Amino acid sequence: MNRYFIEIAYNGSSYFGWQRQPSQISVQQEIEENLSKLYSNEPIQVVGCGRTDTGVHAKQYFLHVDLPEEIETDHFCFKLNRMLPASIAVLSIRKVDSELHARFHATARTYRYYIHQRKNPFLEGLSWHVPQELNLDAMNEAAKYLLGKQDFTSLSKLHTDVKTNVCTVTRAEWKHENEQVYFEITADRFLRNMVRATVGTLMDVGQGKIPSSKIPEILSAMDRGAASTSVPAHGLYLWEITY
Amino acid sequence: MNRYFIEIAYNGSSYFGWQRQPSQISVQQEIEENLSKLYSNEPIQVVGCGRTDTGVHAKQYFLHVDLPEEIETDHFCFKLNRMLPASIAVLSIRKVDSELHARFHATARTYRYYIHQRKNPFLEGLSWHVPQELNLDAMNEAAKYLLGKQDFTSLSKLHTDVKTNVCTVTRAEWKHENEQVYFEITADRFLRNMVRATVGTLMDVGQGKIPSSKIPEILSAMDRGAASTSVPAHGLYLWEITY
Repeated sequence: MNRYFIEIAYNGSSYFGWQRQPSQISVQQEIEENLSKLYSNEPIQVVGCGRTDTGVHAKQYFLHVDLPEEIETDHFCFKLNRMLPASIAVLSIRKVDSELHARFHATARTYRYYIHQRKNPFLEGLSWHVPQELNLDAMNEAAKYLLGKQDFTSLSKLHTDVKTNVCTVTRAEWKHENEQVYFEITADRFLRNMVRATVGTLMDVGQGKIPSSKIPEILSAMDRGAASTSVPAHGLYLWEITY
Repeated sequence: MNRYFIEIAYNGSSYFGWQRQPSQISVQQEIEENLSKLYSNEPIQVVGCGRTDTGVHAKQYFLHVDLPEEIETDHFCFKLNRMLPASIAVLSIRKVDSELHARFHATARTYRYYIHQRKNPFLEGLSWHVPQELNLDAMNEAAKYLLGKQDFTSLSKLHTDVKTNVCTVTRAEWKHENEQVYFEITADRFLRNMVRATVGTLMDVGQGKIPSSKIPEILSAMDRGAASTSVPAHGLYLWEITY
């Protein structure tokens, strides 16, 4: 078996997320269909490192695929990039052990959520515009309560096919970057909508609507209603996957 | 008379340039219509610092407008930004001498042309993707021949309403910036299509199709056919206006 890890990046604006959908275009479908063209239209299936919601971007995303023969990775990468639309870039391809699984063997994932406060026509669709003043110190204080192994039911969409809502968060921090601020969070796993619900809650802290000290209470409520509204998808990036 | 200079930035992707067109949407129309809404739909005319072609961006653009009364500039800026689409940002508004003209009193203009070589889904529409190798040293050598007071007929679209094709170029340089390279050019005035024809010609130098030493010959031909094809609009930014 020839298993390859393909590292990609994508602009999620025009996709209904990573995962194949019956009637809407997904990143997975775009990649599978183009790979298939390279193999006389034989169906090719890929396994991604996780789902991303409609409109969410990926600065780094890994998928694995089993190919019928060994490939020359650089040339294959070049060909695939030429076939794929501008919104999906293949960053690298490498052969891996046939047991390595893009989803199951990922040990940590990092997301970033980007916000800009001064209107900027070149960040449209790439960052969320929030003209209101934000207290980043209070938001960072609140973020510290997210660290460690905890139940994140309050910060996720109800999702029937997961057995536990416990996640271990190893980083949660707001930072400045040029004209933007971003929230970076790393965990062993993420629940559905977790980053966007978390950012929404921290934004309420930043605007003085709730004190940072309320975060432990929100988490222990184990009730989505205890936290704030989710922020829009277009500021969110799956940023890094660790194996 | 209450004359104001309004500093804006715009993403040109969805506009047919700055200048009002009878049947296609322009940045000027968008601004005039929104200003007019603030004055009971009285028609308001603005004067821009220059034209930009369809799809060209502006990182800095000045326009002047005469308003019926004195305004509180910060509040006006805030209101106008809320009305304008995400693709146009008002950066500042200030009252000026009633004789100051946005176009006639500009003493220099700077353009930048952005290129990225590695496919990047987040630069779509904001930079031109050129996967071919480029010799930046040769391109900078060629750029030096553009400096000074010269006739740029060879690097412009024929344009009947200008009297002379002589421009004084005070800067012409290629630089690296993160994952991009850009060409920066400053001159007292620019002819139609001049930057895009110039970049196209320098790109041919960068790919070894013509030697850098051929630039003086191209300029003295005073014939558009002597130079190379223009590059696409979406990498071009009007970058800075000096008064």
